[in-house]
Amino acid sequence: MKNLIIASTSTLHGGGYLDYLLPELEAFFKDCNTILFIPYARPGGISHDDYTGRVKSAFANINKKVRGLHEFDSPKEAIENAEAIFTGGGNTFLLVSQLYKNKVMDILANAVKSGIPYLGTSAGSNITGLSMQTTNDMPIVYPPSFQTLGLMPFNLNPHYLDADLQSKHMGETRETRIKEFHQFNNIPVLGLREGSWLEVNGEKITLKGDLQARLFLHNQEPKELETGSDLSGLK
Amino acid sequence: MKNLIIASTSTLHGGGYLDYLLPELEAFFKDCNTILFIPYARPGGISHDDYTGRVKSAFANINKKVRGLHEFDSPKEAIENAEAIFTGGGNTFLLVSQLYKNKVMDILANAVKSGIPYLGTSAGSNITGLSMQTTNDMPIVYPPSFQTLGLMPFNLNPHYLDADLQSKHMGETRETRIKEFHQFNNIPVLGLREGSWLEVNGEKITLKGDLQARLFLHNQEPKELETGSDLSGLK
Repeated sequence: MKNLIIASTSTLHGGGYLDYLLPELEAFFKDCNTILFIPYARPGGISHDDYTGRVKSAFANINKKVRGLHEFDSPKEAIENAEAIFTGGGNTFLLVSQLYKNKVMDILANAVKSGIPYLGTSAGSNITGLSMQTTNDMPIVYPPSFQTLGLMPFNLNPHYLDADLQSKHMGETRETRIKEFHQFNNIPVLGLREGSWLEVNGEKITLKGDLQARLFLHNQEPKELETGSDLSGLK
Repeated sequence: MKNLIIASTSTLHGGGYLDYLLPELEAFFKDCNTILFIPYARPGGISHDDYTGRVKSAFANINKKVRGLHEFDSPKEAIENAEAIFTGGGNTFLLVSQLYKNKVMDILANAVKSGIPYLGTSAGSNITGLSMQTTNDMPIVYPPSFQTLGLMPFNLNPHYLDADLQSKHMGETRETRIKEFHQFNNIPVLGLREGSWLEVNGEKITLKGDLQARLFLHNQEPKELETGSDLSGLK
């Protein structure tokens, strides 16, 4: 039975890494001693070791051990044998490229479908959808495919940002970009604001946190969903 | 001899489409009657016809005719026979996909190298660099390659945006994204703010407009370039 926490961001403004989620994570990971961390997205180009170190410090607060996927000779076996998995944020193009290069995209999907608890933040959340095509990231590397884990029947836009009506900048708003996506794709997109997360239990998907999320459906006006909304029926 | 205007944006806040560039464009296109417009980037998903209509209206102000590339049976011949070419903004992933699908990426590069005047705005500017890997756009379609026209020995980031120091948003700043690009690529990136453009004459590349541009070199701190700077030596 699937068991996921899919967060828009790892960090809220003014807070420490994972701080706002720790109470939730303590309950979520209560049956695990060691979490397997996938550091492939390398935010700001940080090394796998340094990124894993940052995650170790955060999880020490709730007495969990952390090991980086890059420390294992066989990423496949490391994932299949994990008690729990966390994929951190960074660059989604890099993350997806590395998952394919190490031949673990399907392995990871199957591991989570089999019930290994999975935490994603930002890029690590993006990949739980059908494709990475609603990422905000820069295409710094060329992945062999945009298809991702497909653990939910829709796509995410993490760090969802409302248009700044005072701005004089003429670049596209996030909403415009998602509407462009819907010119060529008909799967739903959930804009998940910083501080929101999804809780997935089996096939039940619930919006958590204090904020609303913005739902974009093909050929429909976007709508705001209240926290607590059940997203299981989305397709 | 190459002859290009490569603009960050088509439109400034509060202005009409191409308004701020029209005096420059009148001189640039003085020997042309008809401009071939490449509408493939489809901003906001607008149709090729509607996008071409918008461009026709703007160029009517300086008495130029416009024809859309999609109106021709052979895009290859249309490009080779053009008096002048304009590629408009929109989604860079879509633009690059369509250029490859219609087998005109190389044709277009060769046409511009042979001296056909070329105007690009936003996505249409992005493709004049070595790759589209410093676009801001969402990967709404999967292009067969990120390589682009290579008319300049560096990459562009159009609509360059300085970090908002008041923001509480935790998504990456533009500068962070470009630094991530430089973890995996060593070609220079020029952040071109809205209102700036590059003028290319042969191998000479000059920064125009009222603003500074921000230059990112691999393993160096970014620096501000004054308008009028000669970028020909960048590599």
